[in-house]
Amino acid sequence: MSCFHMIAVLRIGHRISRDKRITTHVALVSRAFGADKVLIDTLDKKIEENIVSTCERFGGNFNVETGVKSKNIIKNWNGIIVHLTMYGDNLEKSVSKLDGSKDLLVIVGAEKVPAYIYKMADFNISVGNQPHSEVAALAVFLDRYTNGKWSKKKFNGKIQIQPSNKGKKVISKDR
Amino acid sequence: MSCFHMIAVLRIGHRISRDKRITTHVALVSRAFGADKVLIDTLDKKIEENIVSTCERFGGNFNVETGVKSKNIIKNWNGIIVHLTMYGDNLEKSVSKLDGSKDLLVIVGAEKVPAYIYKMADFNISVGNQPHSEVAALAVFLDRYTNGKWSKKKFNGKIQIQPSNKGKKVISKDR
Repeated sequence: MSCFHMIAVLRIGHRISRDKRITTHVALVSRAFGADKVLIDTLDKKIEENIVSTCERFGGNFNVETGVKSKNIIKNWNGIIVHLTMYGDNLEKSVSKLDGSKDLLVIVGAEKVPAYIYKMADFNISVGNQPHSEVAALAVFLDRYTNGKWSKKKFNGKIQIQPSNKGKKVISKDR
Repeated sequence: MSCFHMIAVLRIGHRISRDKRITTHVALVSRAFGADKVLIDTLDKKIEENIVSTCERFGGNFNVETGVKSKNIIKNWNGIIVHLTMYGDNLEKSVSKLDGSKDLLVIVGAEKVPAYIYKMADFNISVGNQPHSEVAALAVFLDRYTNGKWSKKKFNGKIQIQPSNKGKKVISKDR
């Protein structure tokens, strides 16, 4: 993961009751796979609290903002805009075209995505052309984009989990 | 993807109202990333119908079964059992140990996973040791396990989507 640019994820079409768990997964995947922040179009204090609480326990510099104006963010973005969609272009081919020195905005929609998103994105990218999940698409996209480097990221949290084939190895630090 | 063995995904701890969308994503990711079937512990006809409908439209030989007895499936499984968990062992290291000639059962839990799952699994594997999403973990695990070959799978559905950087290119076949 380069330290020179920023990765933000923009979640659009979030409906509080229907999407709370999926959008929470989108936010947690953003954090775990190397993004710096997640922006969610609908104001949702509950999700904000969840993600802030995760960061307090598990570490990392990660921001969450809800109730953002998607169109303004997209219009004013100074960098590359990627929209993940099953209709998009091939993942590997597209990722190789992305300029890694620029800030990146990754847009993930819920069920219906307005046409302007397709138009305003620099790249519409598919993680396979089958219907599946924006959560999975985001994870696999960030995996390819960071070239797997997300897995080396240090979070330095109060809670740290040690890889283990059996049982749970958790290190808790009181700081 | 080898044609000589089977990949099944077992979703445990499914609660109909809370998990319907996440479990649907688990099922769709299973299908899109090369698994042959998904087994869900709680009876849920709605999810079955959703997945069957997806297969009818988008193709592929994929099965869904709900209301299964997890413990029996695990006990009687003739092959390798992998449990995906943030407490598990390193992904790359673990995947390299899996015998690709054997049938594979991949277990993904909801919030709380009973201790017997950790014990009965041959491999507890983490997709990073940060909290994120069973949907993302499943996709990235299957990506590594199939060595990216999931993306080449032919589904031959009535609906086929052509990769495209702008707009939607959909081919519909009436068969």
